[in-house]
Amino acid sequence: MTHHTDHVLDSRAFRRALGNFATGVTVVTAATQDGTRVGVTANSFNSVSLDPPLVLWSIDKRSGSYPVFEQANHFAINVLAADQVDLSNRFARPSEDKFAGIEVDMGAGNAPLLVDCAARFQCEKYQQIDGGDHWILIGKVVAFDDLGRAPLVYHQGAYSMVLPYPQVSEHLPENRLVSARQNRLSHNVYYLLTQALRSYQASYQPKQLSTGLRVSEARMLLVLDSDASLDMAGLLAEVAMPAREIEAAQEALSRKGWVSSTENGYRLTASGERQADVLRDIAAKQQEQVLAAFPADEVEILKKLLRGIITSPH
Amino acid sequence: MTHHTDHVLDSRAFRRALGNFATGVTVVTAATQDGTRVGVTANSFNSVSLDPPLVLWSIDKRSGSYPVFEQANHFAINVLAADQVDLSNRFARPSEDKFAGIEVDMGAGNAPLLVDCAARFQCEKYQQIDGGDHWILIGKVVAFDDLGRAPLVYHQGAYSMVLPYPQVSEHLPENRLVSARQNRLSHNVYYLLTQALRSYQASYQPKQLSTGLRVSEARMLLVLDSDASLDMAGLLAEVAMPAREIEAAQEALSRKGWVSSTENGYRLTASGERQADVLRDIAAKQQEQVLAAFPADEVEILKKLLRGIITSPH
Repeated sequence: MTHHTDHVLDSRAFRRALGNFATGVTVVTAATQDGTRVGVTANSFNSVSLDPPLVLWSIDKRSGSYPVFEQANHFAINVLAADQVDLSNRFARPSEDKFAGIEVDMGAGNAPLLVDCAARFQCEKYQQIDGGDHWILIGKVVAFDDLGRAPLVYHQGAYSMVLPYPQVSEHLPENRLVSARQNRLSHNVYYLLTQALRSYQASYQPKQLSTGLRVSEARMLLVLDSDASLDMAGLLAEVAMPAREIEAAQEALSRKGWVSSTENGYRLTASGERQADVLRDIAAKQQEQVLAAFPADEVEILKKLLRGIITSPH
Repeated sequence: MTHHTDHVLDSRAFRRALGNFATGVTVVTAATQDGTRVGVTANSFNSVSLDPPLVLWSIDKRSGSYPVFEQANHFAINVLAADQVDLSNRFARPSEDKFAGIEVDMGAGNAPLLVDCAARFQCEKYQQIDGGDHWILIGKVVAFDDLGRAPLVYHQGAYSMVLPYPQVSEHLPENRLVSARQNRLSHNVYYLLTQALRSYQASYQPKQLSTGLRVSEARMLLVLDSDASLDMAGLLAEVAMPAREIEAAQEALSRKGWVSSTENGYRLTASGERQADVLRDIAAKQQEQVLAAFPADEVEILKKLLRGIITSPH
């Protein structure tokens, strides 16, 4: 099922394939001499060089914000934290003043710096390269902030967060060191939560993928799975996805005849509801399998405590 | 605490700041006419353009593999899946034959394609740009595979996985639609696990960050927190981190006087053990807070079922 692009590119399939590479989410900002400020959400950011300190990102040549980036001698990369989905959505869509009502610091070249990010990089424009339908902008970092917050992640068209990777002690020969720590860890609820989720995902995700649906599409199916319909604003609030991806998922599901758009918004068709049932069946069977070994009353206690952890203020 | 690089760059601090941008992990491969094969682990991959389909990545100018990438007309980007940490580590270190004993498919220009990845992109070399101490290689995608597996993620010097972002129903006005689905979700253990972990992380990570330690450093401290010592091989097996990052974390912890290296490997100093105690105290207090509301016997059931989910074959 290798896609060949020599002759004609299926750009939808290509974009979906690219979505498998997880990235952080940045908002890149700049300002003109006269104070016009722009900001665009971009996940094409990456580091290039330590000496000199260079980073790059790409901007769509058709972007309405590009003229300002072209004019400005500086730009600022704001690496978003996990709780900054609203900023990601705000700067992903055109609007009169994307900065209305948000606090910013002033960076080099007056590029606005967002607050409470994971990191910020103030850059001097270093080089601009023609990259097909995008411009690749290389910046020389003149200042940066390392705030270290948990990052917002973007994968398969949906927002995600990072889940710490398990320590792979299984692979180590049994010895006192390991068993001592393993014993400690076996009472560490945070560790147990990450490992349980990892284990659950490992067997669950392949079953979900077997439906051929992307994370973003499955998420929208389940959100729309009801007798009500949602408009774009409702979807934005419900599914943690950028508007662009919601449109892409909606198109994909519409092509399959699973979603129809009415004047009040999007809703599932009968076949869409059947597909949502398939997804829920997979989820239900998975849960049965995983919990088969435990008595029902203990499973209820598990759910109760998980709900308690979710709602407890900490 | 903004770092200014105009005069002199603290490249260690700069690398750490860059680590806040989460990325997937790729292995980029190529081959010469005479069949010499190279592969390097890179997280600098990113998409550039849909039309034409362009992607880019950067390679250290000093890389021993560069001459082959310079010669070859093609390269292949292999986006690693969550369970391919071993491949990431294997291709991150120099070795005689990195491909020894691993199955590969043959890509354009004979570039080796790894199997069971999240996605693969076969590229024709399109442009090479001087990027300071790296070369930026832009490729035109001639073929790709979308395998959709859960991806390996790299953040703050440590491997991670993606944790689905919560649906933000909280932000929606209460209505039948939401409460109907919320009720379903309140019995979905996978959903409850992701939300419980998110909630736990939200209050836990800032407390961890207050120590000023990066994920990679905290992880190594806790791994070494024992009377035994570990060599690099042991650390690679124990902490889910690339060798380069293990060295960086070990250097950082040594500078602080927390880790010393002996002929049998690395071990914590007395002050390092005290620092590890601080981390465990933070973890313990967090757990007490989160679970304070629940009777001890129910907490034990929670732990037991989480352990069961971890070990159950599914």
